[in-house]
Amino acid sequence: MEMISSKDNIRVKTAKKLYKKKYRTTSYLIEGVHLYEEACKAGAEFVQIFVTEKFANIENARLVSSEVMKFLSDTETPQGIIAEIKLPTLEMTSETLQRLLILENVQDPGNVGTMIRTADAAGFDGVILTAGSADIYSPKVLRTMQGSHFHLPIFLENDIQALYARLKTQKTTVIATTLSAESIDYRTIAKPEKLALVMGNEGSGISAETAKSADILAHINMIGQAESLNVAVAAGIMIFSLTD
Amino acid sequence: MEMISSKDNIRVKTAKKLYKKKYRTTSYLIEGVHLYEEACKAGAEFVQIFVTEKFANIENARLVSSEVMKFLSDTETPQGIIAEIKLPTLEMTSETLQRLLILENVQDPGNVGTMIRTADAAGFDGVILTAGSADIYSPKVLRTMQGSHFHLPIFLENDIQALYARLKTQKTTVIATTLSAESIDYRTIAKPEKLALVMGNEGSGISAETAKSADILAHINMIGQAESLNVAVAAGIMIFSLTD
Repeated sequence: MEMISSKDNIRVKTAKKLYKKKYRTTSYLIEGVHLYEEACKAGAEFVQIFVTEKFANIENARLVSSEVMKFLSDTETPQGIIAEIKLPTLEMTSETLQRLLILENVQDPGNVGTMIRTADAAGFDGVILTAGSADIYSPKVLRTMQGSHFHLPIFLENDIQALYARLKTQKTTVIATTLSAESIDYRTIAKPEKLALVMGNEGSGISAETAKSADILAHINMIGQAESLNVAVAAGIMIFSLTD
Repeated sequence: MEMISSKDNIRVKTAKKLYKKKYRTTSYLIEGVHLYEEACKAGAEFVQIFVTEKFANIENARLVSSEVMKFLSDTETPQGIIAEIKLPTLEMTSETLQRLLILENVQDPGNVGTMIRTADAAGFDGVILTAGSADIYSPKVLRTMQGSHFHLPIFLENDIQALYARLKTQKTTVIATTLSAESIDYRTIAKPEKLALVMGNEGSGISAETAKSADILAHINMIGQAESLNVAVAAGIMIFSLTD
């Protein structure tokens, strides 16, 4: 196997561009052994795999020098494996989805990744992100999700009104979290059979449209002095309370 | 008020060093309006306050140029206020503490800050960090705590065996979270009157010492495919389930 030792190699240069969203039209990069193994388990379609000597035994992998790996990597200490994977094409068939997490304009990559991981752990059927939420194929979200995007479908939905209309016809209870006084304590909610839990933006919360369309507005009672909970922590409390 | 416009100003240079732990012997820096207001509310002891024109009305503040503020700041877009505050001297009087969160070797600053904020929201009485946990006076933890360190006492404890011995004599139920099969489902735990919840390291979990000393080992049941929950999410679920 020939080793790529120049950062100017066209494959290397082209692959590195995939960290930028505008270049991510058909594929994206994952980094590290854990995500690579998750991708294999999930039967993800590999475009190419860059490895250092350590992983030279991987079939059809492209061997690169440590310097090139460092150049390609988004981390301080690269593990030595980066794979380019085809973006999945998912069609939303929410008819079959019993438990959905909707992230409305959640902007912090760590929060988005952590909530998808939590929904995965709780056995949710899917996640819907509205426009304005962090890009799930960015390195930070991918790291935080720890492979959960291989376990459950994640949809992008720009038309939130159409989404709520569809959920209504499917008799899915939409529960939106808020700090508003007009909401109910989450502990008083009877566990719905089909539910969509909406978490809003870190600063401004859920949109007026969501507040109007939701079947239930709920909050987490806080007896302490903190003004709010981190959105991913709040999501974890709600998800496990509502489905557990 | 005279404006400091040089980064070489001795006050500025000395203050900036406080981002490094080794220089943080008697004071630390907080940044931004929210933390400044929380510090005022809490009656924190200010050493000095650096401000740009925008906050020039603050009494006894030191006016600095935008360039100096940028130099002093730990953020990309400084709000224009940084205060040096005396480190508190706290003596642990755990006799009076009914609800404690113990962070054992939790290394990620975001996780540490988020868990302290959650404990604050839930009305906990205090947090204990063991050696090896992230430094709570680092900028990242301070940002994530959002002022919770002004609301509840945070103790450092290097002798974990002595800590557990003390909690035992005070009849505090120590609940440690684990992924181990020998632990019980957290939903089956009767809410204890006095409790100390232990969250362990992100990678390796709780120590053998904690596993041996805890009254209850508990886990969160996951029906999905994710291998684990983020430690701060798990803490949120446990905290609200055990005390709510």
